[in-house]
Amino acid sequence: MQHFLRHARACLTAAFVLNILLGLFGALPARAADEDGYDLWLRYRPLPTAQRTALQAAATGIAAPDDTPTVRAAAAELRRGIAGMLGRAPDTIPSTPQPRLGAVVLVRANALAQVSGLADADNLRRELAPLGPEGYLVRRARIKGAPVMLVAANADIGLLYGTFAWLRQVQLGVAPDRIALADKPALPLRVLNHWDNLDRTVERGYAGESIWNWWELPNIVDPRYTDYARANASLGINGTVLNNVNAKAEVLSPAFIAKTAAIADVLRPYGIRVYLSVRWSTPLELKETKTADPLDPQVAAWWARKADEIYRSIPDFGGFLVKANSEGQPGPQDYHRNHADGANMLARALAPHNGIVMWRAFVYNPPAHPGQVSDRATQAYDQFKPLDGKFDRNVLVQVKNGAIDFQPREPAHPLFGAMPDTPLMMEFQVTKEYLGYATHLVYLGTLFQETLRFDTRAGGRPMTVARVLEGAQDGRVGGIAGVANIGSSRNWTGSTFDQANWYAYGRLAWNPDLDSRAIAREWAGQTFAPDARVVEPVVDMMMRSREAAVDYMTPLGLHHIMGTGHHHGPAPWVDNLGRADWNPVYYHRAGRDGIGFDRTATGSNAVAQYAPDVARRLADPATTPPEQLLWFHHLPWDTRMPSGRTLWEELVAHYDHGVAEVAAMQAEWQRLRPFVDARRYDDVAQRLAQQQREAQWWRDACIAYFQHVSGLPLPAGVNPPAQTLEYYRSLAFPYAPGHG
Amino acid sequence: MQHFLRHARACLTAAFVLNILLGLFGALPARAADEDGYDLWLRYRPLPTAQRTALQAAATGIAAPDDTPTVRAAAAELRRGIAGMLGRAPDTIPSTPQPRLGAVVLVRANALAQVSGLADADNLRRELAPLGPEGYLVRRARIKGAPVMLVAANADIGLLYGTFAWLRQVQLGVAPDRIALADKPALPLRVLNHWDNLDRTVERGYAGESIWNWWELPNIVDPRYTDYARANASLGINGTVLNNVNAKAEVLSPAFIAKTAAIADVLRPYGIRVYLSVRWSTPLELKETKTADPLDPQVAAWWARKADEIYRSIPDFGGFLVKANSEGQPGPQDYHRNHADGANMLARALAPHNGIVMWRAFVYNPPAHPGQVSDRATQAYDQFKPLDGKFDRNVLVQVKNGAIDFQPREPAHPLFGAMPDTPLMMEFQVTKEYLGYATHLVYLGTLFQETLRFDTRAGGRPMTVARVLEGAQDGRVGGIAGVANIGSSRNWTGSTFDQANWYAYGRLAWNPDLDSRAIAREWAGQTFAPDARVVEPVVDMMMRSREAAVDYMTPLGLHHIMGTGHHHGPAPWVDNLGRADWNPVYYHRAGRDGIGFDRTATGSNAVAQYAPDVARRLADPATTPPEQLLWFHHLPWDTRMPSGRTLWEELVAHYDHGVAEVAAMQAEWQRLRPFVDARRYDDVAQRLAQQQREAQWWRDACIAYFQHVSGLPLPAGVNPPAQTLEYYRSLAFPYAPGHG
Repeated sequence: MQHFLRHARACLTAAFVLNILLGLFGALPARAADEDGYDLWLRYRPLPTAQRTALQAAATGIAAPDDTPTVRAAAAELRRGIAGMLGRAPDTIPSTPQPRLGAVVLVRANALAQVSGLADADNLRRELAPLGPEGYLVRRARIKGAPVMLVAANADIGLLYGTFAWLRQVQLGVAPDRIALADKPALPLRVLNHWDNLDRTVERGYAGESIWNWWELPNIVDPRYTDYARANASLGINGTVLNNVNAKAEVLSPAFIAKTAAIADVLRPYGIRVYLSVRWSTPLELKETKTADPLDPQVAAWWARKADEIYRSIPDFGGFLVKANSEGQPGPQDYHRNHADGANMLARALAPHNGIVMWRAFVYNPPAHPGQVSDRATQAYDQFKPLDGKFDRNVLVQVKNGAIDFQPREPAHPLFGAMPDTPLMMEFQVTKEYLGYATHLVYLGTLFQETLRFDTRAGGRPMTVARVLEGAQDGRVGGIAGVANIGSSRNWTGSTFDQANWYAYGRLAWNPDLDSRAIAREWAGQTFAPDARVVEPVVDMMMRSREAAVDYMTPLGLHHIMGTGHHHGPAPWVDNLGRADWNPVYYHRAGRDGIGFDRTATGSNAVAQYAPDVARRLADPATTPPEQLLWFHHLPWDTRMPSGRTLWEELVAHYDHGVAEVAAMQAEWQRLRPFVDARRYDDVAQRLAQQQREAQWWRDACIAYFQHVSGLPLPAGVNPPAQTLEYYRSLAFPYAPGHG
Repeated sequence: MQHFLRHARACLTAAFVLNILLGLFGALPARAADEDGYDLWLRYRPLPTAQRTALQAAATGIAAPDDTPTVRAAAAELRRGIAGMLGRAPDTIPSTPQPRLGAVVLVRANALAQVSGLADADNLRRELAPLGPEGYLVRRARIKGAPVMLVAANADIGLLYGTFAWLRQVQLGVAPDRIALADKPALPLRVLNHWDNLDRTVERGYAGESIWNWWELPNIVDPRYTDYARANASLGINGTVLNNVNAKAEVLSPAFIAKTAAIADVLRPYGIRVYLSVRWSTPLELKETKTADPLDPQVAAWWARKADEIYRSIPDFGGFLVKANSEGQPGPQDYHRNHADGANMLARALAPHNGIVMWRAFVYNPPAHPGQVSDRATQAYDQFKPLDGKFDRNVLVQVKNGAIDFQPREPAHPLFGAMPDTPLMMEFQVTKEYLGYATHLVYLGTLFQETLRFDTRAGGRPMTVARVLEGAQDGRVGGIAGVANIGSSRNWTGSTFDQANWYAYGRLAWNPDLDSRAIAREWAGQTFAPDARVVEPVVDMMMRSREAAVDYMTPLGLHHIMGTGHHHGPAPWVDNLGRADWNPVYYHRAGRDGIGFDRTATGSNAVAQYAPDVARRLADPATTPPEQLLWFHHLPWDTRMPSGRTLWEELVAHYDHGVAEVAAMQAEWQRLRPFVDARRYDDVAQRLAQQQREAQWWRDACIAYFQHVSGLPLPAGVNPPAQTLEYYRSLAFPYAPGHG
């Protein structure tokens, strides 16, 4: 009021008073309409004019059988996509009574011969045969001389996958008449793992609460489940474990089976099976058996009855995921049985229904005494390798990408390639527990690719982890699982760029050989606009982002030096936790003499768990990849690095470089302002600014600490940390998200 | 595949195959586009043609000062509303350089004289004077002979309130040239209480997690906070307590003060002040004092310093809400001080900054021994009445609407009218802790109205609770608080109809004399469509809904017989909780001899806490309102009721009637199918179906139990419960939502 009066006094005409007008909206440069991110990469926004004209000609209508929910879902998605990209209401896309000029035609392989006038039907069938039950062909064809867009597959789900593949290309600006695709997935099991609790909290979730509204299910069904299914089907994800591996007994109660069935009903048309994580001691806790010993017939009978009960309401139920004898969870070892005894007992309950068991290899026992040099990194191998060949055919052993726990960088897990007689599943973490939550921009496509392409040298031959999963080693086909980053946030993942990690996981699950940069390009084109002025800078940010995080958090092979429990921020000084192998000091082993975990023969000899070719290379610092140096070696601070710097100087330089990379990403994003809607632009900008603060904090705290333990002066020209080590040690983060 | 083949065999022409087409979208009758409810009652959908034409003429542009965030918010809302209702892009609504034919003109009272050519400026100023700092005038006016729509107010916030009021009328289909409003709020404090925890769980929240993303604040600010502010400002809510009354010490740490300040910055332009719930023992828990004794100078000094610290970042911070010595929370009684000692100490810390203390009267001590006939209903009065006049001027005592705890029906709290020398705040619960969560359709407008219109007879004169709050009794003006039902759910409240409870609370906070049916009409018209074919049935459902819930849950004055802890569903049998006054059997006292809590002179004599006129009426079953009978009286089962039925028969009849009412609401909703978009229609339909199941369960379980304790046969023609009493007793609800 005061301010206004001051103005008013200067000039008392009404014209002046009313000239102070809201010019805000009109004056803004034309920017895209705000988006809240809910549509993910399935945005289907109107195409530029030229492309729109081409699509209009190529997609005059949709011809599809109307006899199964899956094909109906494909046709509905086509309708939605075409309508969106043409800028029309969906009901103006006609259902084509005859395949006519420009129709999109969905046909199953066994109906190809019945499409009268279809040129080349026999060739198409031959091409489809090797594409299997989930593959598809997408190509131009002619029916009675008229060009149509043909989506053909051996089964309904292939039609849906082909539809999504075609829509992806169109969204990316590919001219419809140039789209020709033939594809099938490399792995039969492409699964999301939700670490979602029954009270809707999400362990390591940074995107709100669980999307599963267990309380309201089964009678109130959130339409969001359908959009979840669409997004996953668009990537080819075909399974989802609904609940946390730290499972509760109640999830197998009749009430929760009914809730699970309601979700399964929504996901089924999209080719997605539901699985549940089960708690080993469930029958005991529900007071329905007197033991949970896997060799007790009553226990086995209980699980068989429970499986029957589940399959009565969910005929295509996928099976169980199990975390047993790990981090306090009960398991068969409580009864002096081994993991195979446990897994096989469950597998036999599920086998009659074609269900599977995914048994996690994430196990490590506490050191017998605090001073013991037991290496947590070796324990999964030690426990599981001897069980190779002992698992039933419907058991898969699910192995994390690395031997510790989803660190910014880990060498590939030594179990890959080491269990030729056991199908293995990869477990990636899509949610960024150790990588800055949903705040930091860290594209994980490069991380996933690094592990999938790691050459295990199993059998002395080239054998990447991807090939191991695909059964090249042994003919037993494995699978892949990603710990989901999905929550109730409007944009699903808490931030726009975390959508890319869901996307990249799904695309690599379909085809582990895809290039992470090509995936980033696909994602950016669909998420923002198929415009090189946007895509190239966005992809550049993504491709440098993970190395930036490694540099400002844990360069040169450092690991597990994050804050206790929540894993937020730096805490390399922590040395007082209940178990030695929970302490950061256990992992970095920094002191006056040097830094790093000796995993060669002079230390824990973890290197010996790799194939001889690999072990030989890792045993010598000179042939160890520099980015994994301190994972495998304890080295003096003055070790000379290839760069010419000492190890200490190199470490500091990496921290500084990580911080500088975030600044560079911020600058790059600022230049994208004209091309991105204000809402998503601002959200990303706020997150990058916060990432900058936190990267600086990581760098400062770690340098302060390592300087303290090394006693070394800062290299010349390096800025000292902004605060004292005591300050960084004093920071506390009550109510950090992601606790289960 | 199999199904398809069977069809295909019948007719092998391509024409047939491709004729089985997706006709789904085209064939549907034209229904409104799906809505997810995010827009609440501020939907601004295109008006019918005639109304659109009228609006077009009446709102050709917007003229407003552009000098404060509040007026900018008003102009932006006008632009958004007009654009939506006209079906235009907002930037096609011009900012009017001159008030021209049909402009909407926002003017402050002190600038009226400066609008040259404004007819009647002096009259307008005179009319504005009594409308106070938050009131507004909305009316047609002429500037230089041209008709304009004038929104005038004494202060900026009045311009925003007037804008929302005008938009409400237009949305409701009132012809713009007939809108003439002059209004101001009856109470200065119109507050929401969020029982939101710092980890984003919400105590008694059934709409997802807290909208406050504490972790990401202050640097990442969710645009949803702005929409929260808009919705509240549209009702006139001017304060919000961000965190749970069961407060944590950390909320007063510097980190959380910064987060609170970031929220305050977003809410400020909308006239909403932020408040915090504080934990009595905060300085002690933060280890900054050695005691929390309110009379210890160090404690007082700590709070004064803390207040200074808060006001440095939030100059218009509202103050503190306190739950002390209640349900395990610490408080001044821990130091043998009373509530006034505690409240005044805090009040003195806040007074220099014009902050206030809202001190809750929700207190009850455990019975000294299990058999003791202490009445929880009497304890707030017993503790607070003697303190009347002892509170500092900036303390308000916040009293729940009834003396127990937000039951489906409670008599008005006896403290209203009993503390003439203390400003009182009403505490309503908008979230439906005891009323079916977000599943049951229960409109609370009628419940709020019932309490606000209760005649306390304070001083022997007519004196409604509303008048008490407004200071008619004593000249001290109080306020009103509603425990919010807002969460991260896309539709904010978990269900469409729960939005009406937020709406009704806000409207009654502004004007406690509004009629609950008129409010329902307003809400329905804005939420669905201003069409009598929708509004009348919707309002009918709403108006009968609360009585239905009372009937199927707790008829005739029964109370607090819900499930332990979560308060979901019936549990009248519970008799084993740690405190006698937590047990349902404590409240209903049913046995062979009869049912009900004797609160007359022969019992707890709670009736004596009311004014003599009221107490006299309540002391006699014959003059007690029948709907409160068993609240005040313990009566034999064969008591003859005005209906001619026995008490037992009457009780059963009420349970049956409640269930029948839900069936009637379901049928009514089904008839609305053509008028409501599919998404909201289906969601409501699913919830009503679940309400039907749960109403039946309530009815069956309560009848089974009361029949068991009374030993009486079911009245003739009454259906027996579907299950045994043992069955109902066996039900358990792990992971029920709403635990804090």
